[in-house]
Amino acid sequence: MNFPIPTLKDVAAAAGVSVSTASRALAGNPVISQETRDRVQQRAIDLNYRPNAQARALRSSRTNIIGVAIPSLVNPFFAEMAAAIQLEATSQGFSTIISSTSEDPAQLSDSLEVLADLRVDGILAVPYRGTEKVLTELQESGLPVVLVDRELPGTDLVTVASDPGPSLKAAVAHLAKLGHLPVGYLSGPMNTSTGSRRLAAFLTACRELGLPEQPVYRGGYDREEGYRGTGQLIDGGVRSIIAGDTMMSIGALEACHARGVAIGRDLALIGYDDHPVLRLQACPVSVIDQQVAELGRTAFHLLFELIAGASPPASVHTPSTLIIRPSSNFTSPAKEATS
Amino acid sequence: MNFPIPTLKDVAAAAGVSVSTASRALAGNPVISQETRDRVQQRAIDLNYRPNAQARALRSSRTNIIGVAIPSLVNPFFAEMAAAIQLEATSQGFSTIISSTSEDPAQLSDSLEVLADLRVDGILAVPYRGTEKVLTELQESGLPVVLVDRELPGTDLVTVASDPGPSLKAAVAHLAKLGHLPVGYLSGPMNTSTGSRRLAAFLTACRELGLPEQPVYRGGYDREEGYRGTGQLIDGGVRSIIAGDTMMSIGALEACHARGVAIGRDLALIGYDDHPVLRLQACPVSVIDQQVAELGRTAFHLLFELIAGASPPASVHTPSTLIIRPSSNFTSPAKEATS
Repeated sequence: MNFPIPTLKDVAAAAGVSVSTASRALAGNPVISQETRDRVQQRAIDLNYRPNAQARALRSSRTNIIGVAIPSLVNPFFAEMAAAIQLEATSQGFSTIISSTSEDPAQLSDSLEVLADLRVDGILAVPYRGTEKVLTELQESGLPVVLVDRELPGTDLVTVASDPGPSLKAAVAHLAKLGHLPVGYLSGPMNTSTGSRRLAAFLTACRELGLPEQPVYRGGYDREEGYRGTGQLIDGGVRSIIAGDTMMSIGALEACHARGVAIGRDLALIGYDDHPVLRLQACPVSVIDQQVAELGRTAFHLLFELIAGASPPASVHTPSTLIIRPSSNFTSPAKEATS
Repeated sequence: MNFPIPTLKDVAAAAGVSVSTASRALAGNPVISQETRDRVQQRAIDLNYRPNAQARALRSSRTNIIGVAIPSLVNPFFAEMAAAIQLEATSQGFSTIISSTSEDPAQLSDSLEVLADLRVDGILAVPYRGTEKVLTELQESGLPVVLVDRELPGTDLVTVASDPGPSLKAAVAHLAKLGHLPVGYLSGPMNTSTGSRRLAAFLTACRELGLPEQPVYRGGYDREEGYRGTGQLIDGGVRSIIAGDTMMSIGALEACHARGVAIGRDLALIGYDDHPVLRLQACPVSVIDQQVAELGRTAFHLLFELIAGASPPASVHTPSTLIIRPSSNFTSPAKEATS
């Protein structure tokens, strides 16, 4: 008979402590009380737990902590990403510390210094243009780095980002089929890879669906831009709007509420990212869902492989999907009124 | 003439780096490039910057990093609190690292170990029952600790929490004046100081306003409880609901949308915390606003005083206010229909 080989998780469960406490206890870390260290070591003996010697040698120089640098705590897309990363890291015995970098390259450089100073085992970062050098240097100094959400041209850092193509095409096709043309697109900034990739995907989708040029508002990733752009697109006569990120989606919602535009009747709206504000409306809003939990999990696993010394692929694209809700799922009336 | 004494901030600005980079550069930290170290040191000489010798001696043993342990990244109340703390910390030359503890005492203990391991200069924590010992021991080991949002009876740790009394009384008075009685209260769990203090404040408000006993749903801080409680209170015939926290407020909103109850017409609703979901409705929802930015700022300043060796007061209560919006600001019709 084969009994399953006991893992650190089994030892932790038997001792009634977390995986990271068990790891520290077995390493003899003095932060753990003597009593706990004794108990964990006894359970490890009871269970005949034998950590792979090589893995343990490797681990002894580790802190079992990863650092996560996100642009904002208040943007729920990044908050959920960090939460998903943490959940996955915890299950592998890693603690997670988070640093918020305020969409500011200087602050990201600063955060990276702090995290490196703290001797984390690896870093997951949402990058900005202008941080290519510091991120590459970190990686070259031997600290594993994985980029999340945004790509950074000019580097060969491992990157995980969602693919906007299929879901944006599905969104445009859905709106066109129900007569919600013209469709206006609220574009993010061109100095982020997500901003430029999504706009390109929108334009490609229109072309592939045989539509003439549709109106685009070129903005930035904030509510004010979403609000302003929505006003301009509505004044320009669109019947539907696709917003290019969470914050612009919320701005679009605010603009509709402020103007008394009934979403799901006067205007079809599709947001980006499944933010609670969009879901929890009297008329729930359709969204392009980046499946942020999957993005976070994938990113952690690539970092984990790098920490373990493997060479993961250079770039991974995770899927995004269109979630259709009442805000867009109706037929535009009075097509005949347009000349 | 008196010229203002140059500060580290002035040196940082002159060198075009952040305050924490300037601090590390002057300390000769090798994480900072030689070029930046030279530039910062030259600017310090140019400006005749003379750090107080005693303060510098003290600082050299510091990391200039504070740790913040919050229960959830995804709950925007805590995300905004952490963001406010970070903003204030940055302005004082401190970096902030954040740890999420998932409403789990064991995970908080673990996070505190990690933060102490990393030699942060001080910790701001949202505490749970069951973590009295570890928090007290940390403080006794010489690491400054300040509790935020929730009090922890049985400890003498410095605590900052908002006072629910005046704003809950204002909310009940507002609802009673407009005929929205009975008012149902969605109460949080009794094993948190906020849960028990807010319920006590609601009951006191009703008594002081001369109202008979009003219905209370005793729940927990999550959306499911808010949803379930709202259903029960509506079935019980209330005309208005006050929710006891952010997540229950969102659950109440979902329950109303799902039942087709028109907030601001069929039911008066007052939420807790100024969450975007509540603000960004077609009928915006009144809230009790804890002014979380003020809470975070106050907490950082108390921690800063502790780090500097001062003895701040044992407990600070920050104000909360009632923000009236259309969800409650109407007159309940058909009072004569009730017998």
